[in-house]
Amino acid sequence: MSGFSVTPVQGLPELGEGDDLAALIAERTELEDGDVVVVAQKAVSKIEGRVVALVGVEPSDQARELAGDDADPRRIQVILDEAVELVRVRPPLLIARTKHGFVCGSAGVDASNAPEPETVVLLPLDPDASAARLREELRERTGADVGVVVTDSFGRPWRAATTDVAIGAAGVEVVRDLEGERDPAGYELHSTRIALADEIAGAAQLVFGKLDRVPVAVVRGLEVRGDGRGADLVIPPETDLFR
Amino acid sequence: MSGFSVTPVQGLPELGEGDDLAALIAERTELEDGDVVVVAQKAVSKIEGRVVALVGVEPSDQARELAGDDADPRRIQVILDEAVELVRVRPPLLIARTKHGFVCGSAGVDASNAPEPETVVLLPLDPDASAARLREELRERTGADVGVVVTDSFGRPWRAATTDVAIGAAGVEVVRDLEGERDPAGYELHSTRIALADEIAGAAQLVFGKLDRVPVAVVRGLEVRGDGRGADLVIPPETDLFR
Repeated sequence: MSGFSVTPVQGLPELGEGDDLAALIAERTELEDGDVVVVAQKAVSKIEGRVVALVGVEPSDQARELAGDDADPRRIQVILDEAVELVRVRPPLLIARTKHGFVCGSAGVDASNAPEPETVVLLPLDPDASAARLREELRERTGADVGVVVTDSFGRPWRAATTDVAIGAAGVEVVRDLEGERDPAGYELHSTRIALADEIAGAAQLVFGKLDRVPVAVVRGLEVRGDGRGADLVIPPETDLFR
Repeated sequence: MSGFSVTPVQGLPELGEGDDLAALIAERTELEDGDVVVVAQKAVSKIEGRVVALVGVEPSDQARELAGDDADPRRIQVILDEAVELVRVRPPLLIARTKHGFVCGSAGVDASNAPEPETVVLLPLDPDASAARLREELRERTGADVGVVVTDSFGRPWRAATTDVAIGAAGVEVVRDLEGERDPAGYELHSTRIALADEIAGAAQLVFGKLDRVPVAVVRGLEVRGDGRGADLVIPPETDLFR
């Protein structure tokens, strides 16, 4: 293969609930069959209205306790509402398992880049469905058969800083399994599974920029058509040797 | 920014100890100032002679016990020799902390893609030094001031499959710290640290391919000059909330 390119989609406006993201993307780039459109979670969450005004949140005693003196207990309450399990707790920092099965900081609840000062942004309810919907809308708008990956920035154990990973996908090979294939020396590769969609997410993050409001990138030249889902990257705890 | 490209370096021969990897790369691609040359660990380890013949390895009782009936106790012994701590043990699978501080499967010891059947490949002794050396040799061969990232495929807790991450770097911004910068809404971004070099590593893996022997890729168009090190991505256990 001859390589691939990652191009930011420039000039998108601040997004709000109900905005036609597919149309906004289609106006700003020429999509081709086989492209992968990578979208930061916050863009998807905003158009889906996954924004919570803190003014309406009543923090529980647990939220107040975890918030301590430094954090907003209402924000902690929203995190608790999004979490099915607190995996690590170092108040006011929380690592939680979300309803989707993702393990991430603050259960994916984000206060930075929120559209209003007193709001927070939640993960999409179903990021795979979000990706499938955007894919279909992009096909309607452009005629191009593209893949879509929805990303978020996750921390991880044992390594510093965050990388973007895929939380939703449509029309994309998410995990490539080389089991049964042979390496150049003729050896069978056992359970060599590559998280392609996470690597695509990370590549796109390199052009997103947190500051200059570029939440969409187009990856062109990769042969990664498939039907994987972001959920494929959630490992069942019982098979997670790394836990 | 206008995006970036990732291009595999095709046609490299099978590598062995003492091979001039910089010359082999320089013959096959036109490097430019600011490019990042990404090299899979196995290529670096092979030219550095980090290959162990199992025939000379005497397994300890611990290695025999961990190997059980399914694994080669000599390979387990090599893993134990590379490890400073066994982080997870599910015989014969071992997750270990290496002397470099990396936490990864088999302490980075790899049997697939080994040059000979009865050999295994170890991580470079000092991947940052390997990257710096290759960077200097590429400058001598081509005149181009490039960055170098050395990568390996790591599993991770909570998510399925592997991504490539940076184990060594030279001339590259490895972690971008947005602390103190402000998001578009004017909010200061607290401790938003992005593992750029891991995302670069993952992007390159998308063109490596385990099967077609492409261990080198050139990333062009990213503004990531810097002086980070792969070691910057090793998080001290005491500050690792995700552990």
